[in-house]
Amino acid sequence: MIRVSILGGGNVATHLIDAFLKVDDVELVQIYSRNIEAIEPFKNDVKITDALQNLIPVDVTIIAISDDAIAEFSNQLSIDGIVAHTSGSVAMANLNDSLTKGIFYPLQTFSKDKSVDFSDIPICIEAENEASIILLKKLASAISTKVYEIDSDQRIEIHLAAVFVNNFTNHLYQIGNSICDEHKIPFEILHPLIKETANKVQEISPKDAQTGPAKRNDLKTIEKHIAQLSTQEKEIYTLLSNSISKTYR
Amino acid sequence: MIRVSILGGGNVATHLIDAFLKVDDVELVQIYSRNIEAIEPFKNDVKITDALQNLIPVDVTIIAISDDAIAEFSNQLSIDGIVAHTSGSVAMANLNDSLTKGIFYPLQTFSKDKSVDFSDIPICIEAENEASIILLKKLASAISTKVYEIDSDQRIEIHLAAVFVNNFTNHLYQIGNSICDEHKIPFEILHPLIKETANKVQEISPKDAQTGPAKRNDLKTIEKHIAQLSTQEKEIYTLLSNSISKTYR
Repeated sequence: MIRVSILGGGNVATHLIDAFLKVDDVELVQIYSRNIEAIEPFKNDVKITDALQNLIPVDVTIIAISDDAIAEFSNQLSIDGIVAHTSGSVAMANLNDSLTKGIFYPLQTFSKDKSVDFSDIPICIEAENEASIILLKKLASAISTKVYEIDSDQRIEIHLAAVFVNNFTNHLYQIGNSICDEHKIPFEILHPLIKETANKVQEISPKDAQTGPAKRNDLKTIEKHIAQLSTQEKEIYTLLSNSISKTYR
Repeated sequence: MIRVSILGGGNVATHLIDAFLKVDDVELVQIYSRNIEAIEPFKNDVKITDALQNLIPVDVTIIAISDDAIAEFSNQLSIDGIVAHTSGSVAMANLNDSLTKGIFYPLQTFSKDKSVDFSDIPICIEAENEASIILLKKLASAISTKVYEIDSDQRIEIHLAAVFVNNFTNHLYQIGNSICDEHKIPFEILHPLIKETANKVQEISPKDAQTGPAKRNDLKTIEKHIAQLSTQEKEIYTLLSNSISKTYR
């Protein structure tokens, strides 16, 4: 039984709490948030606190707060056991040197109201020594089948890649949505295409999956499309089309 | 029983043939391709030909060939019944005026080797008269649960939106893939995130689903990311981040 505490009350914290509460190999001992209301829904399942001096010693303390606040927050901690944060973009070295440092980074997009199946979520583990690695891996394996040992340099690249395949992709969905709205077309008509585009690259590489006017270098269609678009969308269309063309030249 | 012929031997044609062969309400009468080898795999199921003068009269003839070739190809046809093409970007008016024109546009990305479930694929229908609309809708409903009546102007906008959510999205996946390759990270680590990003917008709007440094206006992270990237990726990162920021300003 691994004893765990979670510090934080946001999306990642909440989803981790849910996941840990569901499994037998993990004892979720305590949740901390400076905003106690955020974690009150869990008060029947686990001890909650908004005071750092009340933290109970555990095997693994997970800091699940916003990226910018991690370094400063870790300076206020003085606890035994592994202290791991969940951020994709903050290096392990940013944790206070007095702590036994670790990383427990779940690579997924979390929304407050949308439940996720944690077993399919890759968890990226990093730690300062082999014993910590083993324990964090065991903890991650309790909730996920996809556990990776990833160093801080790699993790920062993964986070960057995630911005492309998640944040930017979602923005392209939004442009598609606004084109539909403008012309009284239900956006749901694009749902199957969006799903299949994502599913395809689970089986074949994006390079092999690429289709469309830019790949075919179909300048007639590209010109027509650019004429249909507003300034900002035009720029995006042009840059991405050029980038695709270059890839296949 | 609707009698149908398909003219073409590419991806769309092949997937349509497969779909029609599976259902009872449609009799697939004939397949034409100028390249007979492309359609030879079907010769035991249906008549095949590479000569337009051999076309048998049917209720609906579907032209599933490349966009650029449709207008010219339709000039060579002299047949009764509805003649519909499957392109998202070619207006119905481009079909020869002697024909009873229609559109049968399946809104999906097709790969040769990846089978698709046609029942989930939106089919956009257009025709010159109500009788043709009814027949094309009936034909579409035989293979799909998602049938839409969409005029040529709307269809051209859908096709443009599809370039954003499919072609460009796939290119972002490819950038993610190349970042992973460069840093010896398995691309599969991004698969669940890619899938969830696509699934999320089936339930909530892309606007509500947006996350990330550009939405948060987290300039520190944005600057770090830009420094990590090559020239071309840098430009894409900057333009898309700016575009996201503007949306939420």
